Amino acid sequence: MRALEFREGLLSYLDQTRLPAEEIRIETSDYQEVARAIRRLAVRGAPLIGIAAAYGVVLAAQSAARNAHANFHTEVKKSIDVLLATRPTAVNLAWALNRTRAVLQKSSHFTELEIIARLAAEAAAIHREDSEKCERISDFGAELLPSGAMVLTHCNTGALATGGRGTALGVISRAWEQRKVKLVYVNETRPLLQGSRLTAWELKNLGIPFELIADSAAGFLMQRGLVNCVVVGADRIAANGDVANKIGTYNLAVLAKHHGIPFFVAAPGSTLDLRTASGKTIPIEQRASEELTELHGLRLAPNNIRAYTPAFDITPSEFISAIITEAGVSRAPYPKALQTLSFAEIAA
Amino acid sequence: MRALEFREGLLSYLDQTRLPAEEIRIETSDYQEVARAIRRLAVRGAPLIGIAAAYGVVLAAQSAARNAHANFHTEVKKSIDVLLATRPTAVNLAWALNRTRAVLQKSSHFTELEIIARLAAEAAAIHREDSEKCERISDFGAELLPSGAMVLTHCNTGALATGGRGTALGVISRAWEQRKVKLVYVNETRPLLQGSRLTAWELKNLGIPFELIADSAAGFLMQRGLVNCVVVGADRIAANGDVANKIGTYNLAVLAKHHGIPFFVAAPGSTLDLRTASGKTIPIEQRASEELTELHGLRLAPNNIRAYTPAFDITPSEFISAIITEAGVSRAPYPKALQTLSFAEIAA
Repeated sequence: MRALEFREGLLSYLDQTRLPAEEIRIETSDYQEVARAIRRLAVRGAPLIGIAAAYGVVLAAQSAARNAHANFHTEVKKSIDVLLATRPTAVNLAWALNRTRAVLQKSSHFTELEIIARLAAEAAAIHREDSEKCERISDFGAELLPSGAMVLTHCNTGALATGGRGTALGVISRAWEQRKVKLVYVNETRPLLQGSRLTAWELKNLGIPFELIADSAAGFLMQRGLVNCVVVGADRIAANGDVANKIGTYNLAVLAKHHGIPFFVAAPGSTLDLRTASGKTIPIEQRASEELTELHGLRLAPNNIRAYTPAFDITPSEFISAIITEAGVSRAPYPKALQTLSFAEIAA
Repeated sequence: MRALEFREGLLSYLDQTRLPAEEIRIETSDYQEVARAIRRLAVRGAPLIGIAAAYGVVLAAQSAARNAHANFHTEVKKSIDVLLATRPTAVNLAWALNRTRAVLQKSSHFTELEIIARLAAEAAAIHREDSEKCERISDFGAELLPSGAMVLTHCNTGALATGGRGTALGVISRAWEQRKVKLVYVNETRPLLQGSRLTAWELKNLGIPFELIADSAAGFLMQRGLVNCVVVGADRIAANGDVANKIGTYNLAVLAKHHGIPFFVAAPGSTLDLRTASGKTIPIEQRASEELTELHGLRLAPNNIRAYTPAFDITPSEFISAIITEAGVSRAPYPKALQTLSFAEIAA
């Protein structure tokens, strides 16, 4: 079941907030619905939200063309702005929408229908390319994993987070196909439980052996020698190699370094943001207190209290053993390694 | 509202599994019910389970005396064994039951009613002394906290976990009374949410400013300079100063050390286990997978998956800035410091 599908002018997506209890697909022709789906995390994962946004712009263009009163170009540009504002941390959203915007800018002499076709082709290309990038990331990453890998991962970075088999989870599933993986430990990933709900669902479907753990048990596992590598994804990678990723990633990175365990980051080149010098200036999305104090309407804490709920954290590059992209494996010094990658192989 | 009360031959306890939604007291004359309450964490916190167990033995003695067919001494000894087996990690349980057992052993020439009275007096003494220890721990600990303290704590170590104002939370509330505390960050403490459910409830009732965080956000807070000390409790302290405490404590200790933040452990002397040389041999209780995969009957993960759920972890003594007991503040080298404490001031 694909996380996103675009067919006959409609975008359908798996509502990831309902997993694993229910597998519900929602079909829409309304880009505002796509923006809502991204904001409420029905569609999530840095690469996937970029792809969804690109399709969202196609929906906006279709609507504008159907509505005789609309100013086509204004409406499409507005949709790009709305989709861009849905979430601040992952840079893939801006990257995908920049590709869409470039298509629009080069289209002044085309008809509206031609523009829609070109936007749809670009979105499909972003989608297909992301799938290909996942394959290459998985190949490069699987080589890095030790035989008898006992891998710890965080959040969800698989088919539900990307246009293909996944980034960190793609690395793990490829290494599993190569019989290198003994066991995967999955951080439940509070507050939204992407590990319990999504990664566990994917691993179960793939038949890969795994155990779920509380995020707070990672140190215990490492201390007991139960983990020999950590693989995570990324929402943004700065020019110096600092990585923004799901809250809790930095905890794991410090723990891995203390225990001498390699810590790998896997992400497509679209996650690289060379215009951001370091992690210090990456905006960190703050989510609502209720994400921590409630769960499906169940109250977990007293009423009227405050929770501090950053959705992401920054892992400084000195904690990262390697960054795996579709262009290969980058190691410190990252500023040079990433700059080279970006210009030589990733540019579209 | 006291966590435990013994009155007119009945033990009443606050069912902590129902907090914060409901404040329900359960009254019982059955020690098996006390054992169940400890196993299902309706009564929890290392010092409190010791106190509850001591009262449980009184209930067993009362029942045995009422039942003409029972062998009084056999029944009371059996209750000690049953209560001792409820939970393996906290040593306070064994410590309190050893005091009870000693009373029983010295009572061969007393009547059953006299023995019941002596067991009840011992349980009340354990309860009262724990409250006094909390006061002294709070005084010693509050001195260690910096002015403008931004304290991170884990699990619940307050009035719900002890016979008094608490250990780590007693330190924090005493420092708050001394106007030294700016803000308390409370780890939600997965899987059973003692932070969200219990510590938040206590701090809210005390009017101490706090924010709830995901356990995985601790590193982010430290990196941003939002935390300047960590205070936690303990379930067992080995002779070398290694500390068993709620799963996630070790994560915090590694993070605190990396960020140069003092890490304090507060616990009564009854938590010291000088016969255990180091943390390596402290038994770690494994809880059911469902504690991670379900919440109040709500399914959080796919069915039929495995979770790895140690309830405690071990923090090696080199991560601990000081251990605060009612006898004062101990610092490394701990083997000597703790040995001295134990013999000079804690013995009953």
